[in-house]
Amino acid sequence: MIELVSSIIMVAPLVSIIMGSSSDKAIATKAEKILDASGIPFETKILSAHRQPTELVDYVNSTSSEVFICIAGLAAALPGVVAAHTEKPVIGVPVSGNRAIGGMDALLSIVQMPSGVPVACVGIDNGKNAAHLAIRILHVAGKGE
Amino acid sequence: MIELVSSIIMVAPLVSIIMGSSSDKAIATKAEKILDASGIPFETKILSAHRQPTELVDYVNSTSSEVFICIAGLAAALPGVVAAHTEKPVIGVPVSGNRAIGGMDALLSIVQMPSGVPVACVGIDNGKNAAHLAIRILHVAGKGE
Amino acid sequence: MIELVSSIIMVAPLVSIIMGSSSDKAIATKAEKILDASGIPFETKILSAHRQPTELVDYVNSTSSEVFICIAGLAAALPGVVAAHTEKPVIGVPVSGNRAIGGMDALLSIVQMPSGVPVACVGIDNGKNAAHLAIRILHVAGKGE
Amino acid sequence: MIELVSSIIMVAPLVSIIMGSSSDKAIATKAEKILDASGIPFETKILSAHRQPTELVDYVNSTSSEVFICIAGLAAALPGVVAAHTEKPVIGVPVSGNRAIGGMDALLSIVQMPSGVPVACVGIDNGKNAAHLAIRILHVAGKGE
Amino acid sequence: MIELVSSIIMVAPLVSIIMGSSSDKAIATKAEKILDASGIPFETKILSAHRQPTELVDYVNSTSSEVFICIAGLAAALPGVVAAHTEKPVIGVPVSGNRAIGGMDALLSIVQMPSGVPVACVGIDNGKNAAHLAIRILHVAGKGE
Amino acid sequence: MIELVSSIIMVAPLVSIIMGSSSDKAIATKAEKILDASGIPFETKILSAHRQPTELVDYVNSTSSEVFICIAGLAAALPGVVAAHTEKPVIGVPVSGNRAIGGMDALLSIVQMPSGVPVACVGIDNGKNAAHLAIRILHVAGKGE
Amino acid sequence: MIELVSSIIMVAPLVSIIMGSSSDKAIATKAEKILDASGIPFETKILSAHRQPTELVDYVNSTSSEVFICIAGLAAALPGVVAAHTEKPVIGVPVSGNRAIGGMDALLSIVQMPSGVPVACVGIDNGKNAAHLAIRILHVAGKGE
Amino acid sequence: MIELVSSIIMVAPLVSIIMGSSSDKAIATKAEKILDASGIPFETKILSAHRQPTELVDYVNSTSSEVFICIAGLAAALPGVVAAHTEKPVIGVPVSGNRAIGGMDALLSIVQMPSGVPVACVGIDNGKNAAHLAIRILHVAGKGE
Repeated sequence: MIELVSSIIMVAPLVSIIMGSSSDKAIATKAEKILDASGIPFETKILSAHRQPTELVDYVNSTSSEVFICIAGLAAALPGVVAAHTEKPVIGVPVSGNRAIGGMDALLSIVQMPSGVPVACVGIDNGKNAAHLAIRILHVAGKGE
Repeated sequence: MIELVSSIIMVAPLVSIIMGSSSDKAIATKAEKILDASGIPFETKILSAHRQPTELVDYVNSTSSEVFICIAGLAAALPGVVAAHTEKPVIGVPVSGNRAIGGMDALLSIVQMPSGVPVACVGIDNGKNAAHLAIRILHVAGKGE
Repeated sequence: MIELVSSIIMVAPLVSIIMGSSSDKAIATKAEKILDASGIPFETKILSAHRQPTELVDYVNSTSSEVFICIAGLAAALPGVVAAHTEKPVIGVPVSGNRAIGGMDALLSIVQMPSGVPVACVGIDNGKNAAHLAIRILHVAGKGE
Repeated sequence: MIELVSSIIMVAPLVSIIMGSSSDKAIATKAEKILDASGIPFETKILSAHRQPTELVDYVNSTSSEVFICIAGLAAALPGVVAAHTEKPVIGVPVSGNRAIGGMDALLSIVQMPSGVPVACVGIDNGKNAAHLAIRILHVAGKGE
Repeated sequence: MIELVSSIIMVAPLVSIIMGSSSDKAIATKAEKILDASGIPFETKILSAHRQPTELVDYVNSTSSEVFICIAGLAAALPGVVAAHTEKPVIGVPVSGNRAIGGMDALLSIVQMPSGVPVACVGIDNGKNAAHLAIRILHVAGKGE
Repeated sequence: MIELVSSIIMVAPLVSIIMGSSSDKAIATKAEKILDASGIPFETKILSAHRQPTELVDYVNSTSSEVFICIAGLAAALPGVVAAHTEKPVIGVPVSGNRAIGGMDALLSIVQMPSGVPVACVGIDNGKNAAHLAIRILHVAGKGE
Repeated sequence: MIELVSSIIMVAPLVSIIMGSSSDKAIATKAEKILDASGIPFETKILSAHRQPTELVDYVNSTSSEVFICIAGLAAALPGVVAAHTEKPVIGVPVSGNRAIGGMDALLSIVQMPSGVPVACVGIDNGKNAAHLAIRILHVAGKGE
Repeated sequence: MIELVSSIIMVAPLVSIIMGSSSDKAIATKAEKILDASGIPFETKILSAHRQPTELVDYVNSTSSEVFICIAGLAAALPGVVAAHTEKPVIGVPVSGNRAIGGMDALLSIVQMPSGVPVACVGIDNGKNAAHLAIRILHVAGKGE
């Protein structure tokens, strides 16, 4: 099930925010607020790399977005799987949740990608910086300004 | 490219050994020797979850194997991606390589799967135990004896 | 003292859930619910590898269960000790408890088994995935379906 | 002293590779080869955030590059300092060196940036992925193709 | 914006306490109390190395203080940046905040400085010891007694 | 198979050195030299908690030794299993081997014992201190002097 | 100041419990209860290795106790300093407190002693096992029974 | 035994370099070279906090040095013990040695001092920065210039 979390999109989105689980919503909201304030059109999805692999790939292949922000905890495969199916920049946000291991699992699962499939990792739970980085990337193209 | 590493299969394989990279070969060999000694038919593939996602899923869907052994280092998404596309048991082997972080990245990337998509993680570089575990699983079914 | 925690078993159990301590009960319950929902007969015991080593081995040797789920925190020897006394598949669940070290002690104590005595480790506190993995293993044998 | 390490630039560079120390050269070379193969004009500098802070800022403010790749070990402040002085995307590569701590110091120093000053962190010693990520970013703008 | 947090300075300060963020205030207060009790004149500033790099350098270059206490969390570049712009002793205090990673990021970002730019790191959240260390340093000069 | 590694015992041993694997021999030798130099009678065994659980318990129950030194790597259950079967003091020595994880797995597996079953853990690979500690314990009883 | 915390000693103590700080009292109480229940005479002191080094050494040299239990957090030098001034067995208990680093600092500060000066480390916050270990040591001498 | 390692002192030393073991000599040499080049009189001692506690304290109390540099590995109590016996600034250098744990034990043992007894910790194996920091401290007093 692809749930449309945010529907404030009037124009084709430039950024796709994908959460691995609805429990990552607080982190996604941080990113949404920054993008909103900058007037960047975006859309937000909940799509697990492990539980909805086919829907995830279908979405990645069909969206107009130029940049992906992928938010995931635990063995956070989401950003890497998205990066494996697109040539567009993918930003990963590791989520700590309430877990004792403090998000180190998600951080290492996101940042330590094999050569050839890069993910741009930002800090643990730092949805804001994911949005700021997306904006910087779009500005190189003169987009989102 | 799906490279056939081992072709000593006379009968349909019961175990599939999948490496994320050819650099994981030494670990795969440890598992192969144990399976060979037990007379378990198996086949070995090199298929990266990040670099060959489509071929990987095609292989998982088409093989007759009852158990998967997935060997990977770094942000080791391989076992989890396989587990997301099959209902069969998936065993993950984290690989340390020569890397300073000692395989903790691969260990956490393999073991910390979200609920609903289990991976059976064995020790870092412990290809032998992956094979021993596969044999135990097959014995429940009276297979491979 | 072998305490019978759950007694909803009508038929011979296919899965044994063993906790190292009654404080691991919340994790065991997660596994029980999944097995219940799948109609897999199971039984649950509290047996410490360190405090009741003899009773533990007696139980492992006498049960009809095909798969063991062992739940333990701290220096979690339970899954390894069970695996040393049976040839059946053993699944280990590391428990974090309220402890500051976050379950890394239990995770490493469970996953880093010596060659020849495999334990199938799942994520920290992830009783659900232990049950899902047990179900996958039983399905290879056409059991529990 | 701003040392010009690579001078194969015929046109204005699109990517600046900055090393914190000449000992990071092997990692920089990995990035250079990928950019070269893709025909992306780049230049490479050795500029320490701690030992040449003024020269570093002067360089960041004057270059035509659209993307920065910053390579640093230990308390790797380089990518963050560059990100503090530009609005362009900054990619950070943590370096492990021969150090026993395995690059975890550099990884955390690069990825855990405060909100508002994003750095796109790639894997430890993974100069290749820094280049691949830079190429993805430039392609959003239709540059470097 | 350079905000003057404490203005109880009658004489030129001997110690400057710089926080990377207003959220580090509780740690700064611990240091202030120790300095106050010892009669050491000091002033306290909030200046982020990443968000106010120019103001930070201007302040470091203009103050009469003999010792700097820099308090920062996450990728705590503050002490290192100050040490890069002065020849005076710089003390760094890593801050854990409420973050799951426990201040290890800030500790490594502060202590693992490259050779030539030393920072005197004290314990996580230990603002008291930063003040005690500053007093010991001033006493070598017969100051603050 | 219980292999008698050292047979220089003329009198009943006061200390039993038990290795989990023959690969731990270098660490055992360090302990043996200290005991030898102090004139403490000892014997050394190779007995895996996971691979020879029955022989191990039989040995623990039958020896005259007053103190056990248990040397083990990986998921080092050996000291804890011995402590579960005797009321005598048990000293554990974590072994790092050549493994990238540096013995942290063995350290946590040995030191984090549940309440009621204590193990006296010494430093990683520190066979010498295990012997020194055994001597201190025997001296309380006026033995080994 | 040597504060006498517990004064229920009728006979010369066999065990000395030393805390590094009054904040370690909850851990000391766990040990006291076990010793009390076993009828072992003991006394409890608060003596910091860092803040009261002279008083600490004086106490160690003058007590009749046969075994020391040293409880400390952070850079827990207490057990090692005691072990440096006595030939009697010293048990160390690392304390986590409320600190984010989870007691790993205290654990490593206690267990990684240099050769020749052994400390018997038990688990983080595990005052109970310190007492159980002390009792095992005293039983070798036929004391405390 | 207090061994005089370096005797190039013509005048009373301003800095004392103390190693916990002769195996730390390579790190001490790095500091000596920096101090030599700056014309700072110093002397170097090998004095273990654990094996020579009395000689260590005697030396600290009798030297004319204004700053201490303490170099130690493992459970590195040396800097803290020195800081407990002097009111002068104490700099600690954690040593990794060849050990698999990478100096994290020494780092935490040095930096996590209790409040009131500060140690100025520099990076792992970074003898150079210890010297640079000592020079900065002496310059506050107009010494060593």
